[in-house]
Amino acid sequence: MKKVEIIIGGEDLHLVEELLTKARVSGFTIVPNVSGKGHHGIHEGHLLFNDMHTLDMLFTVVPEVLVDPILAGLGTLFDRHPGVVFVSDVWVTRKNYFEQYAKFPR
Amino acid sequence: MKKVEIIIGGEDLHLVEELLTKARVSGFTIVPNVSGKGHHGIHEGHLLFNDMHTLDMLFTVVPEVLVDPILAGLGTLFDRHPGVVFVSDVWVTRKNYFEQYAKFPR
Amino acid sequence: MKKVEIIIGGEDLHLVEELLTKARVSGFTIVPNVSGKGHHGIHEGHLLFNDMHTLDMLFTVVPEVLVDPILAGLGTLFDRHPGVVFVSDVWVTRKNYFEQYAKFPR
Repeated sequence: MKKVEIIIGGEDLHLVEELLTKARVSGFTIVPNVSGKGHHGIHEGHLLFNDMHTLDMLFTVVPEVLVDPILAGLGTLFDRHPGVVFVSDVWVTRKNYFEQYAKFPR
Repeated sequence: MKKVEIIIGGEDLHLVEELLTKARVSGFTIVPNVSGKGHHGIHEGHLLFNDMHTLDMLFTVVPEVLVDPILAGLGTLFDRHPGVVFVSDVWVTRKNYFEQYAKFPR
Repeated sequence: MKKVEIIIGGEDLHLVEELLTKARVSGFTIVPNVSGKGHHGIHEGHLLFNDMHTLDMLFTVVPEVLVDPILAGLGTLFDRHPGVVFVSDVWVTRKNYFEQYAKFPR
């Protein structure tokens, strides 16, 4: 399983929620009101986030097959809305919780 | 070392704290008031968490030998209280901080 | 890329921010007001954090070459200020965001 962590401006959180719902993730968690400095880098010559940006962190745990569709969607979204995404490996116990998408087209 | 991340309804947080203390973890961190949608999946035919659920995220970093006892305890707990757990690899610097349980029976 | 997660007392957060800025990280995220119990272990005979400690969690995602300098700085800082750090593997999509430090001396 893969953990996909997204940091996005609070005003754009709904766009990420819609994207994940369309990608048919089984759920996600939101950590509200995180803050950040330039996380992480430069977007079109500007610091990605400044000190005062109100950000939300959102993560979901998905089967590997869902990672590419999610990243593709985020790539398009991030062209207009600053954000950043990290992917990492996680294991879960009740794996069946997450496998309702095993039939998702590869 | 393994990072064990748990998401649980706020009303059940104390149960997880008790479980971790009994499992002799050396410490844990709580990220309060996260929100979630169906994170992650279906529990006995119902969405695991709904939009309005007040959730807490809790994580601990433990020697690998502690992972199975913790997961076994959580498995029993999750039969009655909706929750989800992820396990991932992490490294720490002052490893001795975490090795007081090296003598924990395997 | 490596994710470096740091948990520190709120009164010492600025020290970590200064350290990361000096280490030339491209950005970081702060999750404020987490709580913890003894996370994780004993510092000079005392529990590292007690129940009432107000903590902040801070993380950054950096090229591997930056991990050692950051850990060296934190090691010195943690001699006087209780804190803990975890390192894990993550992947990012727009890798160029994070590679402005590829020329950082090894």
